[in-house]
Amino acid sequence: MGEKLFRGQILDFLEDPGVTETTLEALRYLEDGALVTGADGCVLEVGPYALFRAKYPGAAVHDYTGRLIMPGFIDTHIHFPQMQIIASYGRQLLDWLTRYTFPAEAQLQNAALAKTLARDFVRELLANGTTTCLAFAAESAVSAEALFEAAIEWNMRMISGKVLMNRNAPAVIKDSAAEAYTESEALIRKWHKRERCLYAITPRFAISCDMEELKMAGRLHAEYPETYIQTHLSENRDEVATTLGLFPGCRDYLEIYEQAGIVKDRSVFAHGIFLSDSELDRLASTGASIAHCPTSNLFLGSGLYDLRRAKTHGVVTSIATDVGAGTSFSLLQTLNEAYKVQQLQGCTLDPLTAFYMITLGAARTLKLEDKIGSLAVGSEADFVVIDYQAQHLQALRMQYLQRTGHWNL
Amino acid sequence: MGEKLFRGQILDFLEDPGVTETTLEALRYLEDGALVTGADGCVLEVGPYALFRAKYPGAAVHDYTGRLIMPGFIDTHIHFPQMQIIASYGRQLLDWLTRYTFPAEAQLQNAALAKTLARDFVRELLANGTTTCLAFAAESAVSAEALFEAAIEWNMRMISGKVLMNRNAPAVIKDSAAEAYTESEALIRKWHKRERCLYAITPRFAISCDMEELKMAGRLHAEYPETYIQTHLSENRDEVATTLGLFPGCRDYLEIYEQAGIVKDRSVFAHGIFLSDSELDRLASTGASIAHCPTSNLFLGSGLYDLRRAKTHGVVTSIATDVGAGTSFSLLQTLNEAYKVQQLQGCTLDPLTAFYMITLGAARTLKLEDKIGSLAVGSEADFVVIDYQAQHLQALRMQYLQRTGHWNL
Repeated sequence: MGEKLFRGQILDFLEDPGVTETTLEALRYLEDGALVTGADGCVLEVGPYALFRAKYPGAAVHDYTGRLIMPGFIDTHIHFPQMQIIASYGRQLLDWLTRYTFPAEAQLQNAALAKTLARDFVRELLANGTTTCLAFAAESAVSAEALFEAAIEWNMRMISGKVLMNRNAPAVIKDSAAEAYTESEALIRKWHKRERCLYAITPRFAISCDMEELKMAGRLHAEYPETYIQTHLSENRDEVATTLGLFPGCRDYLEIYEQAGIVKDRSVFAHGIFLSDSELDRLASTGASIAHCPTSNLFLGSGLYDLRRAKTHGVVTSIATDVGAGTSFSLLQTLNEAYKVQQLQGCTLDPLTAFYMITLGAARTLKLEDKIGSLAVGSEADFVVIDYQAQHLQALRMQYLQRTGHWNL
Repeated sequence: MGEKLFRGQILDFLEDPGVTETTLEALRYLEDGALVTGADGCVLEVGPYALFRAKYPGAAVHDYTGRLIMPGFIDTHIHFPQMQIIASYGRQLLDWLTRYTFPAEAQLQNAALAKTLARDFVRELLANGTTTCLAFAAESAVSAEALFEAAIEWNMRMISGKVLMNRNAPAVIKDSAAEAYTESEALIRKWHKRERCLYAITPRFAISCDMEELKMAGRLHAEYPETYIQTHLSENRDEVATTLGLFPGCRDYLEIYEQAGIVKDRSVFAHGIFLSDSELDRLASTGASIAHCPTSNLFLGSGLYDLRRAKTHGVVTSIATDVGAGTSFSLLQTLNEAYKVQQLQGCTLDPLTAFYMITLGAARTLKLEDKIGSLAVGSEADFVVIDYQAQHLQALRMQYLQRTGHWNL
């Protein structure tokens, strides 16, 4: 009947390990587990292989013994056009945008190129275990179209939108508030909820958008409240200063977005490194979240995001690659650097919390926890298989833990 | 006649790109080059393939067209016993040593285990393009023996020595100054200059060694002045405070080593994050160098090494992985994080300087620039071949540079 049974070590989360009494309560782990999926592409059930082999005699068995089956990873902030300029060198944020980013984004007005690169982008994400992303397309509508098409081809969950910007950028990649509205609305109607695609209204950031443009984004979201809003917030000291200079009537960076009506529980703000206590409190009160991008923050020398402080204020943080200022498509590499960013601040990011953040935690920030981020019954069969001994060094590490009796979950 | 011709893009350095008038003067690059090696395993000549194909008609051709041939990478600080505990989680330096490192080092008193792991270690280094390393063995003489044996088996250039420590460690991995002397001297006589092996006198750091032990190291080096000295210096704030508490008669950390007679031009000090101006000046005046270990400094939350400040004081810095507090055997990954550590301090590490640092620059700090670190005539044929488009993302990056006309050296 189209049922499939995936055998392996199975790990997913039921809750944030930071809020349960013991971290182990937050997760489900089966040493020899079975993940059974139905013909509809959803999870039927997860349980012990020994029992389920008999319970689902007709299921086609895919044996991944010795590997780890987890929910697909979720990247909450990435730029499709910047894949090509990854590792562009020697600048901090504002220079980097002008010198590297805008020229690359301009190229994506070419529909054929956008189509080719969108397929590369989706394949790169999937190859790194990322099955859902919240991605900036370029300013051109065709760049967003190409991304959604490629996502559908590979059945990836893609949340994206065309970038809105009407100032402080080369003319060729500027829109107007009216164009931005018309193009975004047409894209929403065509792509939002089509297959696994969802739309995100995407003002680049307050430097690139005047208040008219930002308010248009807010109005559009009010009209289509199930869309997302994604933008940047407080990434770099010069950016913050420039932004406040452009909006003299606002007491802080967040107030600009508040006035525009785009601070919502479906808003994801990338970075948020230099927020005041008040800004954090106001973010928390709306349910908006921050996408922390450690490899990018280090690569551009932006600064160190304080995860513990955000949590203290009740702000939910997810983890994101922010390619191309981010230096890897891999959320595992990104967690490596997230750990380091916290260590530099005398704080430990424990691995279970880290894996929660790129699965169930991120799904919750996107209000998609009924569909992705865990292997709960009825979820989409959206998972990855991790060969955690793929490299010889990893195997040596495991042998050591086994020899010293430290290997147990 | 045993000659071999390696065809490819060839890059090596003639000088530090930071001191020449233009960075390009510092390097030699051949788009379609030939590296010719003799039967003695040394470089005969480097030149254009078109000419050399005719000049060396008898040479066996190894065609690496489209790949980059460079001198083998040099890792100036790594711990053999810590390979197994890489990515051990949640601690800063002193706790990390007690909890993870010392138990792992104690295991290397087992000669059979040491032998097996030494082969793993050497293979892991070579797989990452590292053909020379300055490595801490464990406290046991057998751990150093195993490492030299494995290096000879693979013809790797290995500089190592047994760790000296006579206090503040579990009894099982402590020596005494007398034992440390006897064992080290025996190892020097057996291994120093045998094949490509060289010996490094290896006091762990001042917390683990009293002044008698440190002075013994100094005396031994005076007797065998062509050996190296490797130790740790000023890695972590708590370490610095603890160290100064143990040596109340010394005004700063470096003075301890100065009193012991181990600050020499063949001394490599790992880390050096919290050095005073005076300490930097005194290091510079002796010609001792610092091994900067970015992935380790971030992983343990130790701090940010200021490369520019060291250079201003005339201190030479090389780059090192410091596995297992370091998180990768790859010097390329290490340069990735070295770049980020400098970016966080508003400073740019340019890629040519970075590659100089892991080749000729490191060879110079080790006084081995006549043998390794470049492809100069008479150097050992110690090189790596880099497929810089091995990953699809790298290929896309190159295509972009070519399309936009930015690809040129």
